Amino acid sequence: MIETQLQYIEISTEKNPFRFADGKTLHPVTLAYETYGRLNKQKDNAILLFHALSGSAHAAGINNVGPGNAYWTEECHTGWWNDYLGPGRGIDSDKYFVICINWVGGCYGSTGPSSINPATGKPHGGAFPFMTMQDIVSSQVKVLDLLGIRKLLAVVGSSLGGLCVMDFATRFPERTSLVIPIATGVRSTVLTKAMNFEQICAIQEDSNFRSGDYYDHSPPNAGLTLARMISHKTFVSLPLMESRARKEIVHENHRANEYRIQHQVESYLLHQGRKFVKRFDANSYLRIAAAWSAFDLPKQQGKSLERILSRCRDQVWLLFSIMSDVCFYPEEQLEIANALKANGIDYQHIRVDSKKGHDSFLIEPDLYSPYISFKIDSIYNSLRAKGSAEQYDI
Amino acid sequence: MIETQLQYIEISTEKNPFRFADGKTLHPVTLAYETYGRLNKQKDNAILLFHALSGSAHAAGINNVGPGNAYWTEECHTGWWNDYLGPGRGIDSDKYFVICINWVGGCYGSTGPSSINPATGKPHGGAFPFMTMQDIVSSQVKVLDLLGIRKLLAVVGSSLGGLCVMDFATRFPERTSLVIPIATGVRSTVLTKAMNFEQICAIQEDSNFRSGDYYDHSPPNAGLTLARMISHKTFVSLPLMESRARKEIVHENHRANEYRIQHQVESYLLHQGRKFVKRFDANSYLRIAAAWSAFDLPKQQGKSLERILSRCRDQVWLLFSIMSDVCFYPEEQLEIANALKANGIDYQHIRVDSKKGHDSFLIEPDLYSPYISFKIDSIYNSLRAKGSAEQYDI
Repeated sequence: MIETQLQYIEISTEKNPFRFADGKTLHPVTLAYETYGRLNKQKDNAILLFHALSGSAHAAGINNVGPGNAYWTEECHTGWWNDYLGPGRGIDSDKYFVICINWVGGCYGSTGPSSINPATGKPHGGAFPFMTMQDIVSSQVKVLDLLGIRKLLAVVGSSLGGLCVMDFATRFPERTSLVIPIATGVRSTVLTKAMNFEQICAIQEDSNFRSGDYYDHSPPNAGLTLARMISHKTFVSLPLMESRARKEIVHENHRANEYRIQHQVESYLLHQGRKFVKRFDANSYLRIAAAWSAFDLPKQQGKSLERILSRCRDQVWLLFSIMSDVCFYPEEQLEIANALKANGIDYQHIRVDSKKGHDSFLIEPDLYSPYISFKIDSIYNSLRAKGSAEQYDI
Repeated sequence: MIETQLQYIEISTEKNPFRFADGKTLHPVTLAYETYGRLNKQKDNAILLFHALSGSAHAAGINNVGPGNAYWTEECHTGWWNDYLGPGRGIDSDKYFVICINWVGGCYGSTGPSSINPATGKPHGGAFPFMTMQDIVSSQVKVLDLLGIRKLLAVVGSSLGGLCVMDFATRFPERTSLVIPIATGVRSTVLTKAMNFEQICAIQEDSNFRSGDYYDHSPPNAGLTLARMISHKTFVSLPLMESRARKEIVHENHRANEYRIQHQVESYLLHQGRKFVKRFDANSYLRIAAAWSAFDLPKQQGKSLERILSRCRDQVWLLFSIMSDVCFYPEEQLEIANALKANGIDYQHIRVDSKKGHDSFLIEPDLYSPYISFKIDSIYNSLRAKGSAEQYDI
């Protein structure tokens, strides 16, 4: 596997600090990113890939160093989309230049609550702004500007990365030819809001949370463990969870007079939660949950989805649903497909017949890569043909 | 409305302490109960009604006093099934003698973690056994014995009360003529186990929990609030929750540097959780969640549901599903119906076309009462006719 490394880019200056949607400003704001493949001379082969909730800029290959912080555990070393992206993969880095950027507010190299605030010499902690999905997208557009990439070949993202795709494609419609949202939605549902709020409460009510200023104490591990347990059950289909749980050994240790774990699924969930707290920061998690709950494209843009997408008529869309998904239900992508259709936009809606639930987008490359590869190649080739024709016209 | 009052009955003696399924014994064990209507001379008009997770023995009428403890808030004053049970109601107390008993381990008058242990003069607290649904049923059978009721006309219960019905009807098949389980199941599902475990963790990780010995300190309110929020979303259908939440005012108060509530559904859920902690004990809640997760009829009786129900061929069953239920899914009752059918048992399976979710069994009496009333009357009349015929034979 190819060894990769994080690169860093400043998107703010003292005169032009980064401005969050809530009006707060921050400087310096650094974003960590990785790239795969080479940007060609015409700069027309660039693909922006958004990571999902707990992902990082490290999408493919091996990176044992990461941002060099404690959250970069062994689990992070292999890129989170390694089977989907690389030489000869669905997104082929032999042909295309792919960029993946860690979210502002995250904990994998980009400026976030656990980063040192140079003004105080201490981590931002609880003072770090609650960012929105729009802030994440806007900060990444600044990176494209700095790299001189005016128009992308494609923008790709799954789950919360798909929310970024939805926001990018509709706020910056002229900046991409192809739009690939996977297992995502238009607005957070009432069920998502409920479950995110449970997770927010779980973290904030942990007595170690201290309003986010816990970096020189024990972090709120119990709260973040519980939060991850709550979310995990929506990522994996119940039959898959049950079959995985069957391999679990039931933990016997428990505190006197407390509940004794009885079922493998309990051990399994606890293991998922405890594993997660080693590799993620509670403050980042809290802010991402809040940003997800606030996501509502029609509300934020002040018009219906159909009207929003009327700006996207020059784009081509490749939209994925996972039929067993209980995190972003297939109905949510159907709403997008209907609005694309109403606008006469060139789109293909793939309904992936997986039994594995939402996480299918991470673990079943064979179900996605052929469609992604075929569509990217076809758009790239048609743009090239058009480009040559235009050159010929001159 | 009729004023009711709790009665109390001792089910253990020093020589015969109550024995829990885990082997622990306890004395004294007192159960609190209410009755409606009159037991006739033949003692053949008795109906046992099981309450659900957070219910009490007070099923109908007004009781402003309850067990006289702090959990008996105004919310408890009107019986939890007042619209289903009473003179002329679906379960008609003018004709039948109805008994409803608070669960052992509960907090509404029966011996539970918050009850004083006479040996120490202090509440049992964390030392109180983790009871099972079977313990709850067995303890109530002792009450029937003490009241001299050998055979019930009917046993009725919804939700976790329905689990009690399933256990009662199959372990004591000769002790009831009619079986009425509503919106219930055969075993806790993997999703239920996951969500119960989340709730167990939420309570136990609250720093006020102190392994259950919190009665002379602040109770683990934050943990129990979160637990109730987690469960509440399965009790009410999402459209109903959304429409109720629309009336909520978004709370503005929040701790500095913490999440600011943005959505009505968050306020609504927080309100549900905070309201609940006033009227329920965290130790009781914890034990009920554990008992629910452990419920598995085939596993506990060591045979298939079909074989278990082969003992029930002299019973008549009236089984209800709620089509929008996401707490006990309609599939779960279908499994019961299929096993009844396979045994040639006289059963009727009603699929209630409600959009309100699991709580329909509490809030839509008109959808249930006609079926319940008709079936109870018809069984009672046919037993009477048979009884007269038998008398005539002699």
